Amino acid sequence: MRNPLSDKIVALEPSGIRKFFDIVSEMKDAISLGVGEPDFDTPWHIREEGIYSLEKGRTFYTSNSGLMQLREEICNYLERKIHVEYSPKDVIITVGGSEAIDIAMRAMLNPGDEVLIPQPSFVSYLPCCVMAGGTPVVIDLKEENEFKLTKQQLLDAITDKTKLLVLPFPNNPTGAILEEHELKELAEVIVENDIYVLSDEIYSELSYKEEGHISIASLPGMRERTILINGFSKAFAMTGWRLGYAAGPKKIIEQMTKIHQFAIMCAPTTSQYAAVEALRNGDSDVQEMRESYNQRRRFLMHEFREMGLECFEPFGAFYAFPSIKRFGMTSEEFAERLLREEKVAVVPGSAFGACGEGYLRISYAYSMEDLKKALERLKKFVNRLHGKEA
Amino acid sequence: MRNPLSDKIVALEPSGIRKFFDIVSEMKDAISLGVGEPDFDTPWHIREEGIYSLEKGRTFYTSNSGLMQLREEICNYLERKIHVEYSPKDVIITVGGSEAIDIAMRAMLNPGDEVLIPQPSFVSYLPCCVMAGGTPVVIDLKEENEFKLTKQQLLDAITDKTKLLVLPFPNNPTGAILEEHELKELAEVIVENDIYVLSDEIYSELSYKEEGHISIASLPGMRERTILINGFSKAFAMTGWRLGYAAGPKKIIEQMTKIHQFAIMCAPTTSQYAAVEALRNGDSDVQEMRESYNQRRRFLMHEFREMGLECFEPFGAFYAFPSIKRFGMTSEEFAERLLREEKVAVVPGSAFGACGEGYLRISYAYSMEDLKKALERLKKFVNRLHGKEA
Repeated sequence: MRNPLSDKIVALEPSGIRKFFDIVSEMKDAISLGVGEPDFDTPWHIREEGIYSLEKGRTFYTSNSGLMQLREEICNYLERKIHVEYSPKDVIITVGGSEAIDIAMRAMLNPGDEVLIPQPSFVSYLPCCVMAGGTPVVIDLKEENEFKLTKQQLLDAITDKTKLLVLPFPNNPTGAILEEHELKELAEVIVENDIYVLSDEIYSELSYKEEGHISIASLPGMRERTILINGFSKAFAMTGWRLGYAAGPKKIIEQMTKIHQFAIMCAPTTSQYAAVEALRNGDSDVQEMRESYNQRRRFLMHEFREMGLECFEPFGAFYAFPSIKRFGMTSEEFAERLLREEKVAVVPGSAFGACGEGYLRISYAYSMEDLKKALERLKKFVNRLHGKEA
Repeated sequence: MRNPLSDKIVALEPSGIRKFFDIVSEMKDAISLGVGEPDFDTPWHIREEGIYSLEKGRTFYTSNSGLMQLREEICNYLERKIHVEYSPKDVIITVGGSEAIDIAMRAMLNPGDEVLIPQPSFVSYLPCCVMAGGTPVVIDLKEENEFKLTKQQLLDAITDKTKLLVLPFPNNPTGAILEEHELKELAEVIVENDIYVLSDEIYSELSYKEEGHISIASLPGMRERTILINGFSKAFAMTGWRLGYAAGPKKIIEQMTKIHQFAIMCAPTTSQYAAVEALRNGDSDVQEMRESYNQRRRFLMHEFREMGLECFEPFGAFYAFPSIKRFGMTSEEFAERLLREEKVAVVPGSAFGACGEGYLRISYAYSMEDLKKALERLKKFVNRLHGKEA
């Protein structure tokens, strides 16, 4: 029988995140700090709206772009939060932020187009670029820059084939954010070089600086060259609902909608009704969860210092990204031994790009109780390594 | 500013189905026989299971492939219905049948691979093939063959570049089905020529012949070369839940899962729990709905005969595909005048491929009350045309 498979797809590395999960699920008493998902249930009033829509029999397709009232609420939300004006025609409702990334790349890339992908970052950007026929160009972010993308790095990476920059801040896995003056520097380069930005702002509500999240779309000249991606998974603890969106120039959204129409049809209807409620009455939930994450974040940083684990301070998302370089192991070895010896699962930094080597992604989207237990174990492990070092 | 768009995507025609819907939604008293979706609400016990899962706080990601218990139930279901053995590793849960079609093409096609697409058929096959880099080769199905794919047509279309045949039966929009002896003839050609089949069986539960639906995967030598696609939308009236699946050779499913992991993550969790209930306790609902569709189908055929509208008898799905060739109009003109003059919306056959020209897709997934009203109006329209003809 002939080979049934696409060479391009076979050549793609599967995500390195899930690797440890099978071991964890079979290991008694293991604690995972591995998953990139809120530990909170979806707030009750949002679930209630989903339930209500099922009781009412709203089990039919919505329009391809998504419910008009949801797109209107998203426009209100974006205006309120990042002060950028969108109309419902500039918005498409997708199956999570993931689908939005995939169809944005598909709608925009011609063969040979270069896409700048700062790493460490979310595992989907590079494969989605490759699948869409683009050429990924990785930019290695550096701890010495607090894992921010600098103007110089961007300038160095741009060629005349560059079409799109992925801007993944607040960042998974590092927790890095970009502040307004840093965004402004990047925006100048972007406008000058006439490139577009895919700004993945899925963690926008989880920014622990007082001024909150700033979107690059709000800067002069940037709305018309930004595809903003966001969703309900992280901010409203709605991962399983699979609901995200993209907002951007109408002519790009239109092409994305065409792909979405053929490949997906529409996002899940129940989730769309629930999301309307989330945007209308969910601000206080978001604030509560953010405060809770922030408390855990500070606890984590304190514990890292206590046990002598180096870590730059993350101001976004719900991840810390400590360095384990001094222990003379790869991050995969470290993660594997930590799991075997102390039953704590974390994700090796190398899962997020080669330059993540030497780091671990530790999620703090877990209860304080679990975090305390897990950090107790991590401390034992680190102490043992320190002892061996001496 | 430079052009932000992919040439390949811009060149794709948007679906012709939705064109009339905007007019309909603004027109008072219009009746639509246009939508390809059951008119039934999802059965209550299935919705109840979705509600229960929300109450329980099951709002998190599932594994990329989908809930194990759902994949197990799908294996049981396929064994029971089409007598083919699958294990949960041969199954992936997708966002409707649509996503399954898209990721199957992406997982299988290399540039230049030819995909045979019989038309008239569902609007997504051709664009999904093109987006995946394949070369679509359309096979024009003929009314004289009851819109079945014949062995000769298949033989004539195969070249040494042919990799995949799309087999869209029971068919949207014609309602055609393939019977066992016809499938056997095709299977021989498929095995001899070492090609694969994407068998879209989303309407499998809506087959009005006594022997029910036969899957090509159940024929000798075919399980290992068939990607079977099915879902919950049509059989269980669950369109808005966005839940489908693919079953097939493990090595193809694995590559599809990789794409799904990057581009979608997982199918909606609430829908997955509800679908378990659908498969466990939904057989009688399916039977009731099928009987109801069948009654409407016979009513439609009777009315067509009464008004002198030619139509071959459809034995599957919930569509009839009458010919309007004698009226000397394109199907688009006919549909447009019917909507303007009598306020009945149907879909021009040409929306499903060039060879659908001269036909209309009329959905009978509507209440008898609406069907009666709509056919009354259609009859008036046809009589008026006959009058003009005379």
